[in-house]
Amino acid sequence: MRVRAWSTSANLGPGYDIMGIAIDAFSDVVEIELVSGGPDAVVTEVKGPYAKSVPLGRRNSAAAAARAALKAAEQHLTARIKLWKGVPPGRGLGSSGASSAAAVRAVDLELGGVLSEEDLVRAAAEGEREASGSPHPDNVAPSLFGGLVVIGRRIVKLDPDVRFVLSVPWTPIPERKTEKMRSLVPRSVDIEEMVRHYSHLASLLLGLATGDLRLAGEGMSYSLVDESRSKLIPGYREVRDIAMRSGALGVSISGAGPSMLFLCEECDRVVEGVRRAYKGLGVPATVMKVAPAGGADEV
Amino acid sequence: MRVRAWSTSANLGPGYDIMGIAIDAFSDVVEIELVSGGPDAVVTEVKGPYAKSVPLGRRNSAAAAARAALKAAEQHLTARIKLWKGVPPGRGLGSSGASSAAAVRAVDLELGGVLSEEDLVRAAAEGEREASGSPHPDNVAPSLFGGLVVIGRRIVKLDPDVRFVLSVPWTPIPERKTEKMRSLVPRSVDIEEMVRHYSHLASLLLGLATGDLRLAGEGMSYSLVDESRSKLIPGYREVRDIAMRSGALGVSISGAGPSMLFLCEECDRVVEGVRRAYKGLGVPATVMKVAPAGGADEV
Repeated sequence: MRVRAWSTSANLGPGYDIMGIAIDAFSDVVEIELVSGGPDAVVTEVKGPYAKSVPLGRRNSAAAAARAALKAAEQHLTARIKLWKGVPPGRGLGSSGASSAAAVRAVDLELGGVLSEEDLVRAAAEGEREASGSPHPDNVAPSLFGGLVVIGRRIVKLDPDVRFVLSVPWTPIPERKTEKMRSLVPRSVDIEEMVRHYSHLASLLLGLATGDLRLAGEGMSYSLVDESRSKLIPGYREVRDIAMRSGALGVSISGAGPSMLFLCEECDRVVEGVRRAYKGLGVPATVMKVAPAGGADEV
Repeated sequence: MRVRAWSTSANLGPGYDIMGIAIDAFSDVVEIELVSGGPDAVVTEVKGPYAKSVPLGRRNSAAAAARAALKAAEQHLTARIKLWKGVPPGRGLGSSGASSAAAVRAVDLELGGVLSEEDLVRAAAEGEREASGSPHPDNVAPSLFGGLVVIGRRIVKLDPDVRFVLSVPWTPIPERKTEKMRSLVPRSVDIEEMVRHYSHLASLLLGLATGDLRLAGEGMSYSLVDESRSKLIPGYREVRDIAMRSGALGVSISGAGPSMLFLCEECDRVVEGVRRAYKGLGVPATVMKVAPAGGADEV
């Protein structure tokens, strides 16, 4: 059983911890074989461009996620996993989430589709916990289901007709980056700041739900989490300003960064502007047009 | 020029300060005449069931709002206002907002429709400031435009197909109630509480936008503002519990209370349950089915 899962961009600004979108920029492929004994899982081989960045064995997020899936299904089996690692880790693109989603989906398909959506998300989030220390579902859920996913009282999938530009700066990754970026989020927030934050979330959601991309972009472009993290994002202000002047409708930090996501209609101009911005900063970066990707599925 | 504007229910739980809905429970009617001199406005007569609860003269919220509208239109005119007061004040039903919305709309219609939506909201909010000390637009905007209004980056009107039950307990109104209820809102909030709050807001908005009333109701039923205010709402817990057991999909405090709003499909059962709850508490209350109302308009 071989399953591909796509990179994701969590948060979209004010949707911190409740929202993410699968994007067709990068993907991981997981191939599993179930053998007797367990429940357990082990990654026996890692290939692909980012193979060097993730561990072999039981602590790979794909292994942690597959193990959780087998436990949830109450199966006394062990997943032997070969991983093709195409999503760059540490760039705010849901790299461990993609491995986790692919592994969980592969286990579930191999078992004949026994797990509920909630089970799948919970198991994949265990892969996230292994990689980043916290089991947040805002990357794994879109990697699993595709499109835009809102994790509120329930998992809600939206399929908005949207296009983005994604920028991935190749600056050195700080040690324990996700934890460090989470620690930048203020522990407490004034009520006025909270209302300002969620009024932008409302605009983002209503804009996406009604196809008003200008409204969605305005909503996406303010988040008190992005505000407090932006100082650690290479060239945040310059890149954001040039992107907006180049016609971007909205901008957010992708996950915990340093990648950034720009909502756009005329995306070619935004690509050019953002490339120019990183060039001016002397920061090597990949800048590309992306679209919502599908869910984790057999290939 | 005679204009009617409807009562409103602000917040719908997690939409604190950004959301309100016009409901066809109660209404105010304003009759204005523009005379030379000003810009100024004065209420010369108040009739109707709640006439005794609002002042004559320049400090009535209808006068403050009309004056602001004339200023915004840069008119050297004075509005002489007769007010029929049908929305009970102090019950969390946007009473001053209804007077303000009716007055502002009447002035604007009399002037031939010169004010923008933003001008209308800002002027009507001046009436709110006169009555409650703060110019919050979450009552005046739905009273002006009808239906459900979200005030985020822009004013977004939704026209969801929803029905509610409204309960209005006739307990004594505390002095300076709106200020007192605002003071109960925590000044600062933990980030986890904030995420919990706005994840419910996301469910509410997505549920309303997609017609998933169960999701909307789940979203509506948690708000950290309602949590902290509920102890001052007569019988909050008992009424809420019976309403949910009687089939209500969601519940929120209406504005700053003490009225409560229940989202429902089979609303008759909810009316019965809520009546029984207040009866058990010994609290006199009006309990009725309501639907979204239209905007402030000529009658």
